[in-house]
This record gives sequence, C-alpha cells and structure tokens, in this order.
Amino acid sequence: MTEGTSRIEAFSDGVFAIAITLLILEIRLPHAGEAGSLSRQLVTLWPSYFAFALSFFVILVTWIAHHELMRLVHATNRPIQLANGCCLAYVIFIPFPTAVLAANLGGPEMKTAVTFYCATFVFGSAAFNVLVETIARSGCGRSDIDQAIAYIRRGFRITFGVYVAATLIALVAPWVALAINVAVRVHLLRIRYQPTTVSRAA
Amino acid sequence: MTEGTSRIEAFSDGVFAIAITLLILEIRLPHAGEAGSLSRQLVTLWPSYFAFALSFFVILVTWIAHHELMRLVHATNRPIQLANGCCLAYVIFIPFPTAVLAANLGGPEMKTAVTFYCATFVFGSAAFNVLVETIARSGCGRSDIDQAIAYIRRGFRITFGVYVAATLIALVAPWVALAINVAVRVHLLRIRYQPTTVSRAA
Amino acid sequence: MTEGTSRIEAFSDGVFAIAITLLILEIRLPHAGEAGSLSRQLVTLWPSYFAFALSFFVILVTWIAHHELMRLVHATNRPIQLANGCCLAYVIFIPFPTAVLAANLGGPEMKTAVTFYCATFVFGSAAFNVLVETIARSGCGRSDIDQAIAYIRRGFRITFGVYVAATLIALVAPWVALAINVAVRVHLLRIRYQPTTVSRAA
Amino acid sequence: MTEGTSRIEAFSDGVFAIAITLLILEIRLPHAGEAGSLSRQLVTLWPSYFAFALSFFVILVTWIAHHELMRLVHATNRPIQLANGCCLAYVIFIPFPTAVLAANLGGPEMKTAVTFYCATFVFGSAAFNVLVETIARSGCGRSDIDQAIAYIRRGFRITFGVYVAATLIALVAPWVALAINVAVRVHLLRIRYQPTTVSRAA
Repeated sequence: MTEGTSRIEAFSDGVFAIAITLLILEIRLPHAGEAGSLSRQLVTLWPSYFAFALSFFVILVTWIAHHELMRLVHATNRPIQLANGCCLAYVIFIPFPTAVLAANLGGPEMKTAVTFYCATFVFGSAAFNVLVETIARSGCGRSDIDQAIAYIRRGFRITFGVYVAATLIALVAPWVALAINVAVRVHLLRIRYQPTTVSRAA
Repeated sequence: MTEGTSRIEAFSDGVFAIAITLLILEIRLPHAGEAGSLSRQLVTLWPSYFAFALSFFVILVTWIAHHELMRLVHATNRPIQLANGCCLAYVIFIPFPTAVLAANLGGPEMKTAVTFYCATFVFGSAAFNVLVETIARSGCGRSDIDQAIAYIRRGFRITFGVYVAATLIALVAPWVALAINVAVRVHLLRIRYQPTTVSRAA
Repeated sequence: MTEGTSRIEAFSDGVFAIAITLLILEIRLPHAGEAGSLSRQLVTLWPSYFAFALSFFVILVTWIAHHELMRLVHATNRPIQLANGCCLAYVIFIPFPTAVLAANLGGPEMKTAVTFYCATFVFGSAAFNVLVETIARSGCGRSDIDQAIAYIRRGFRITFGVYVAATLIALVAPWVALAINVAVRVHLLRIRYQPTTVSRAA
Repeated sequence: MTEGTSRIEAFSDGVFAIAITLLILEIRLPHAGEAGSLSRQLVTLWPSYFAFALSFFVILVTWIAHHELMRLVHATNRPIQLANGCCLAYVIFIPFPTAVLAANLGGPEMKTAVTFYCATFVFGSAAFNVLVETIARSGCGRSDIDQAIAYIRRGFRITFGVYVAATLIALVAPWVALAINVAVRVHLLRIRYQPTTVSRAA
C-alpha cells in the first residue's frame, strides 16, 4: 500500500523550516546589569553567531539533499515514513548541540562540545543511510533512477565514515573537525544526485 | 456545505510539524557555574533525551494516523473542523507533559509525572474517537471505505481503553505504563487503515 | 495586477499554525525547589490551562473565519496582502495577552489583565473589518458572492461593537467579559459564510 | 539541471511564517514581584510593542518582495537555492536585533542598538541583491520579464545604498535611521515588480 509524496514533503518541509528558524532562539543578550557596553556584548556573542551560521548551513544542505532524495521516489509507504521520521528527529535535535557548541566555543570544554556536535551528524548520517536503503528496497523508487540510487548509497556510506572520523578528530583538534564538517557539506552541494537526463516537474 | 481537505491538511501538518519541533526546546543545558564537567552534564540530561525520543515517536505515529484518517474523507465540514481542532489541541499540548516527564524521570515524583503524561493520551484518544465518529456520521467519508471506518472505530475504542488502563497502572508502575504506551504505537504503525484495494493519489 | 491565493493562504496557514502552537510555551512548571508536590503544582497551573484552552478556541475559530473569507476571493492584490498582514499581526500577538491572562486569572490584577485580553480582540476585529472592506472594494471577490460579502460585512461590524462592549465590561466584571467572548466565537462557528449554492473545490 | 519552484516556495513561506511569529516571544512581562501595577508594566513595554510592529512590517514587506521575485522564475537550481538560503538566514536572524532594539529603545545604548538593527538590513539587502543577480544569470527567469528583472536589479542596488546610509545615520540620529527604514519599505510596497501585462496563475 503506497501513496503520493505530497503530505510527507509538506510535513518534512515544515520541520526543516521550523528547526532552522529555532536556531535564532539560542542567540540571546546577556541579562541586564552584566558587565560591558552593548557593543562589547554584541561582539562577545561571536560564538553564537558562528554556531548559528554553521548549523544554518548544515540544515540548509540537509534540506537540499532531502529534497533531492524525495524527487527519486514516486510514492511512500510505512517504512519510508518511519525512516524519514528518524531523519527529521535528527534535524529537530540540531538546535541543542548548536547551543552546546555556542556556549563552549573557545572555552575549556570546547573539545567535548565539538565532539557532541559532530556525533550528532554521525547519528543523522546513519538515519539518512537508513532512508536511502529503505527507498532502494521499497519499490517506490522511480524506475529510471536505479543508477542514481546506487550512486547516492555509495556516497552516503562514505560520508558516514567521514563523520565518524571527524567526531574522533574533535577529541584532539576541534577546529579541524568543524572544518571537515563544512567541507563535507560543500561537497554534498556540488555532487549531482541525478543523471541530467532525469527531469521531473516539481 | 462541505469543502475540500487541502487547507485543513495544510493547517494540521503545520501544527504537527511545529509541535514535534518544539520538543527540542525542553532540552537545555544547566546554567553555567553548576557542578560537573560538560560531558557529565550531557549525560545527566538522559531523562530529557528519553522524553524527547518518546514524545517524538508518539507525535510521529499520531501524524501518520491522522494522515490515514484524512485520506478517508473527500471533504470537510464544520463539525469535522472542530473535532480535528480538538485533536490538534492535544498534539499541541504534548510538549508540556513531556517537560514534566523529563523533569521527574527517575525522581521521587515520577509516578505523578508519568500518570499526567499518560492521562494526556487518554484525552488525545478521546479527541480522535470523536473525530472518527464525526467523520462516520458526516457523509464526508468516501463511499468505498465504510468497512475501513468501522474497523478504525472499533480499533480506536480499544486503544482508548488501553490508554485508561496505562494511566491507572502509572500510579503504581510508571515504567510499565510507558512501555504499554510504546507498544500501542508500534501496534498502530502495523495495522492497515485501509483495504489494499483502496488507493488515492495524494 | 492580481494573482492567485495559494501563497497567501499557505503563509497565513503557517502563521495560524505557529501562533496556536506557541500557546503551549506559556505553560511552564514552577522552578524546582518551590513549594508543593508535583500534583499540587500541576493543579495550581489551572489558570494556564484555562487561558490556553480559551486562546486555542479563539485562534481556531479565527482560522476558520479567515479560511471562509479567503474562499470568497479568487485573487489577491497589494491592499489585500496588507490588510491580511494586519489580521496576521493580531493572530501572532495573541500569545502575549494570553500569558498576561494566565498570570493574573483569579489574582488582584485580573480586571486589568482581562481588559487587555479583550482589547486585543477589538484590534483584531478592526483588522478583519478592514480585510473584508478591502476585499469588497478590490474586485477580487467572486461574482456570485456579493450577497455573502454584504452579509459578512454587517456581521463583522456588529461583532466589533460586541468586542468593544466586552472590553468595557471587563473593567468591572471580567468573567462576564470572557463569557461574552466565548459566546461570540460560538456564534461565529454557527453562521454560514456562504449561500449553500456556492461550492468551490478547495 | 533545474526543477520547479513549489518546494522552495513552501520552505521559504514556512521560514517567513515562523520568523514573523517568533517576534512575539520577545514580548514578556517582567517577573512577578517587580515594581508597579500590571497596567503600568504593560505600558512600560512600549519599546517591545514598537519593535514588534516595526519588524513585523519589515518581514511582511520582505515576504511580499520575495513572493514577487519567485514569480519571475519558472525553475530553481543549486545557485538559486543557495542565494535564497542567504536571504532566509537574514529573515531568521531578524528576531535577535529586534530584541536588542526593544531592550534599548530610549535607553543610553540606543544608538548602538539601532545601528546593529540597521546593519542587519544591509546584510539582508546584500543577500537579496545576490539572489536577483543569480536569477538574472541563471536562465531560470521567464523570458517575458527581462525588463522586470533589470528594473528590480537597479532598484535593489539603490535600496542597498540607502540601508548603508541609514546604518551610518543611526550612529548619530537613531530615530531618523528607523524612519528611513520604514520609508524604504513603504516604497517597496508601492513599486510594481512586473509589467501589468504579465500574469501568472499562482
């Protein structure tokens, strides 16, 4: 029993849009009465701006990848809905490690914070690997895109390994780990998820 | 006077997406200066992670069930809009008992917290029973699915009874009550809401 | 220059869905360490539950009314977008007077809180009156519904007067003012916005 | 490789709707026990109401402009998605400078707060200029609207200059800077983004 993808796309788009917008709630002025002029306080918030920009970029790229994946299926079923739910749980969770990162960037606990932040992406990558596997096995994929699915499966497995490596690196070199995470997303933006001959009116 | 279901679906999807995303706002780091290293603090938050995962699963399954229900109607009217509103009020309320649960899991007041959490599902189940009854009596159901509606009505009445039982059990054995709630949702995922011959382009 | 109504409906639905869901953020447990058992604390929150239910009902009815209004237009233009924006500003504002109401229900400042709460609906009703006038004068209304528009204009002017009266009554009898507000919404649910012969696939 | 615009519009509409609704979270009652009657406290919050109204108006006008821009393209590609992402990052960021403004309106640090608030719009205008350039160069624009695109490009460059000027003016005359920002938005509402002969069913 299958059905179209419009409601799962609408629900997912809603979750992505809300999670990415909630990131701003983590940026807050210190309480009145604390030391320093306003301009100094605004400058002191740089870890919050940095974490906001980083997680914004991550969620945006994840949304694009999710978008591309959903274009490869013509229908959903219960396993796809559940696997998609795991991906959304990961997206919804992102604001919390972002807040942990912002609170500890440049501080004595930075290694722990970045490791936690990077570990979130290991979980997220696992969820997306499950989603791609589920799509590949569901019979909901479009017939002309077997090659694309195979390509994405291989790519997602490799990025999973990179996220694991970045998490381990974060234990000793947190800035390097963050740089690796950015690089992976830039790469995800550059790959093509589909052969150019595939087109679908969205 | 009836109308199509697209706007009520869009509004409901929005509410589900927001309620499920707001769950993350309940997970917060203790204020700076409190005891313990960051890694210890992150571990100490396990009740929050547990409550987040549990309520995420509950809302996801509820969304799927709502989704299936809406596929059975071809139009809405005022009574359906109101009954649907009661279901949405329940969904919106979930983050609050989730926060109560997270704050008391494993603590001295756990029985009260779990009872409150389970009682929320009794209310929610009542709302969904009202919605199914309203659909069944509205004449908005699709003609080929009388059997499916009858099946769902019976099923929803049974789950209502299970939720009441779980709430009473929570007074003495809270972990058992939580396990029953998970089991009900797993069951809701496995049942088929429609005969396989019914298909509708979504 | 006009355009279809799909994006303005999507944007409005999003705002309604978010505003109604944010109501739950106003319900919070007292900080740990404050007096009383958990069950007593949960009971003490009754003003929050009451304000939540009341404002939920208000926003739901407003969404239905907005929904009906939008069904009467086949296109939007800049003035309709701006008038609609005023209506949305009112909807977005509702969580704040709701929090004020919850914090003061049954307290010494209840009259002030209820007056503020009721005054919000005067502003909201003014916005909806402007929206209906703008639609009536825009030429975007559907040709077969002149009668419906005229009927709604008259009805909205009367409810505006009732909201003003309720706000004045709140200064001396706050519970009566709240009851009037509920009664107006029940009435708004019962009226028919369109002649029965009008039907539109949504 | 291009695709239709429906999902990017849905995602953007969601972000706009959430960002505009989150503005209300910045309006909060002082904690109980602080000086003054409730009515006095409500009046003392005027900077919050003012900042809410101002940022609401800014986001509404930005939504309308974004809406008009998207009507000029018949498809999106990766560069448009990224440029659009920068615009959304700006929209999501707005609640933070709004909170800074509300906390300092009429206070000793007002010049700093207004400068920060105005500088946000310089960033936002840069993002929208990038989006228009990307659209113009993408080949995704509709063939009959080259003239409209050229007109918008010129207009957006001019408004960028005005935002820079307003930010500098804020350093010495903050109220004037705010008035300039309002005037720019009123102007953006009055211009026509398309020749009247262009019509598209939305």
